[in-house]
Amino acid sequence: MLKKDHGLLIVLSGPAGVGKGTVCNALREVDDSIFYSVSATTRAPREGEKDGVNYFFKSEAAFKEMIANNQLLEWAKYVNHYYGTPLQYVNDTVRSGADIILEIEVQGAAKVRERYPEGVFIFLAPPDLSELRKRIEERGTENTELINERMSVAQAEIEMMAQYDYVVENDKIENAVKSIQSIVLAEHCRKERVIDHYRQFVEVK
Amino acid sequence: MLKKDHGLLIVLSGPAGVGKGTVCNALREVDDSIFYSVSATTRAPREGEKDGVNYFFKSEAAFKEMIANNQLLEWAKYVNHYYGTPLQYVNDTVRSGADIILEIEVQGAAKVRERYPEGVFIFLAPPDLSELRKRIEERGTENTELINERMSVAQAEIEMMAQYDYVVENDKIENAVKSIQSIVLAEHCRKERVIDHYRQFVEVK
Repeated sequence: MLKKDHGLLIVLSGPAGVGKGTVCNALREVDDSIFYSVSATTRAPREGEKDGVNYFFKSEAAFKEMIANNQLLEWAKYVNHYYGTPLQYVNDTVRSGADIILEIEVQGAAKVRERYPEGVFIFLAPPDLSELRKRIEERGTENTELINERMSVAQAEIEMMAQYDYVVENDKIENAVKSIQSIVLAEHCRKERVIDHYRQFVEVK
Repeated sequence: MLKKDHGLLIVLSGPAGVGKGTVCNALREVDDSIFYSVSATTRAPREGEKDGVNYFFKSEAAFKEMIANNQLLEWAKYVNHYYGTPLQYVNDTVRSGADIILEIEVQGAAKVRERYPEGVFIFLAPPDLSELRKRIEERGTENTELINERMSVAQAEIEMMAQYDYVVENDKIENAVKSIQSIVLAEHCRKERVIDHYRQFVEVK
């Protein structure tokens, strides 16, 4: 097998409630070749949480310094605490040749895309999006208002989708996991990612 | 799972002797979801060969008419016989929603790319390409002339590679098969291939 020079940053995102966390955990269970991004936070560790495993626990001053020094791929403030993705952990992992996955909401994913365009951006789509057409066509048998509401949400979801490289429908967790694993393997085979590696072999030194 | 509107044309190519046929047959054995392109030829059927299965057997006049009518994705003449890939068989298959694979030498693949740029082009790379660097660095322990020869062939192979979407190293047949299957699944998840499908769901009719 071709030696991998660099790992990939895989960003898994999608609308709220689509099951990003569930799919990510299921992937983690079956695939130990992929690393998982560890977030930095200013909130206090809960019982059993370990620094560098569950989170990188930071003081607010340290977190703000990371922001100032451009050391976060993205960050956000929820309630009173800061959360963010340390760039160094991602960089160290991919430089070691391992892949790393980051599960994040869509606003965060958009920020990551700006800083890390070479990442692989996967949009997890809700399964009922596919069934929406049928439901629309059978309008009358169902609550019209509810369908219209779902439709306008769907339009927003599809516009989000446009910012991603791949769309994986979360119809069944095992299908979504298999699709993500296939995307990772396929991305490692993309010509753009491997040709320079081959070119080095035949460089005259 | 997202209903596939269209299948994919997958083109598997690579330098002579890399094992395209072996990998393609191994894929065929484990994966009956992918169709295999049937070539047209003017040579006579051999014992046991069936029209429409092994080849589409054509008279020279009929073959030349197909050329004139632009009904071949690519064609070539070897010795006294014509061989080519009928466009209609490919189109019928992908329109039915099934994927079709075409195993072909590099000149043929280049012609297919011109006519069918939406295909997925996979370059099967010889496994010794990766080891070449090591061999070059250990020069002296091996026949220098032989290495230099391999190196100039390798340079040509890498230039071929640039015309493809993916590079799969044929180190082990089962790895190559798994990579090809992953590429096919991943390509079906590519945003460009699915977003219009989703957009149709929410079109106001």
